[in-house]
Amino acid sequence: MFVSFEGIDGCGKSTQIELFTKHLKANNIDFVKVREPGGTQLGEKIRNILINEHMCSRSELLLFLASRAQLVEEVIKPALKEGKVVVADRFAHSSVAYQGCGRQLGSEFVKLLNDFATDQTYPDIVFFIDVPVDIVLERLSSEHKDRIEKEGKEFFEKVRNCYIDLSRTDKSFIVIDGTKTIEDINMIIIDTFEKYLNDFRNLRSSSYTSL
Amino acid sequence: MFVSFEGIDGCGKSTQIELFTKHLKANNIDFVKVREPGGTQLGEKIRNILINEHMCSRSELLLFLASRAQLVEEVIKPALKEGKVVVADRFAHSSVAYQGCGRQLGSEFVKLLNDFATDQTYPDIVFFIDVPVDIVLERLSSEHKDRIEKEGKEFFEKVRNCYIDLSRTDKSFIVIDGTKTIEDINMIIIDTFEKYLNDFRNLRSSSYTSL
Repeated sequence: MFVSFEGIDGCGKSTQIELFTKHLKANNIDFVKVREPGGTQLGEKIRNILINEHMCSRSELLLFLASRAQLVEEVIKPALKEGKVVVADRFAHSSVAYQGCGRQLGSEFVKLLNDFATDQTYPDIVFFIDVPVDIVLERLSSEHKDRIEKEGKEFFEKVRNCYIDLSRTDKSFIVIDGTKTIEDINMIIIDTFEKYLNDFRNLRSSSYTSL
Repeated sequence: MFVSFEGIDGCGKSTQIELFTKHLKANNIDFVKVREPGGTQLGEKIRNILINEHMCSRSELLLFLASRAQLVEEVIKPALKEGKVVVADRFAHSSVAYQGCGRQLGSEFVKLLNDFATDQTYPDIVFFIDVPVDIVLERLSSEHKDRIEKEGKEFFEKVRNCYIDLSRTDKSFIVIDGTKTIEDINMIIIDTFEKYLNDFRNLRSSSYTSL
């Protein structure tokens, strides 16, 4: 099973990922947590460049994709093959939302590039934690607020709307109202995951039976 | 005017670029020389990663493209706008030949990615210095020979054949028999360039006249 967490900066992803992986640990479910960009030696070098260097939007997108391709080959594919749960803090849909819509490079083109970079390896569940931009701005520390304000509120509106559009056509999306309490959101995530995991196990055992 | 030099490793590109830029200097023609990957602060960091890190073919291609996109925005477009000659030691066609054909990622797909990365900025002349792989192997120092042998002769045969295919459909390609003497090759390059430069100037002056 491959699970990713998506949403605009400040939506509460990190907190939820922490709670979710605690649940996996408590239930002895073997998992691998990955972050984007990064997660491999190559990816961390690319992350460092993305943080520190000035670059055009096209280079930015291509660097994210280069990091993603290596992460898929080196970590995600082997982990899935071993039957582990992969938990991704952002994945391919971040590029569609941030670079495709936010930076206006075109969401359909970014999807095509994602197909190439991921070798068509996509999450079974995408937990999209949806919070209106204004509420994120109220919540955030001044440090994080600066980053959001630097990009402009309009940028994050575009990103959020893109996630909402994706959730309408992509069946792997689970939209979660991010204005709920931390506990409520955690419960939705765990319930959804458990349901999928059972379906997944039933599917596997039924395919064994049919042999 | 935008001029690139292409060919397999050891074809004699560097020597010819040196002679060509000497000619430009001697004739007071303003030029910018760029190399791929690299040529910008971002590009040099990416070059460093490409040389030192282990990575999959898809990441390799995406990193070349990220470096190229920045080179186009930061150096090539501004130089062309100022009327300078841009001299590139490898450009977009290297990715088609090396990653598209050599690494078998698909030449048509790589062309599509090049269109994106270069924002459709392509050389007016591509000097393809064509040397059979066997002759390159005879010529090279043991250090460079190792590199070629590491990839395998077959890899370079694929790359060379891809350049030959490109030269059949891409009108900007000038195929030069790289087994000729250094002086002969230099003369062909300079003659071709001068002819293009004259056509280019006539075209510009005639379009002024027509105003």
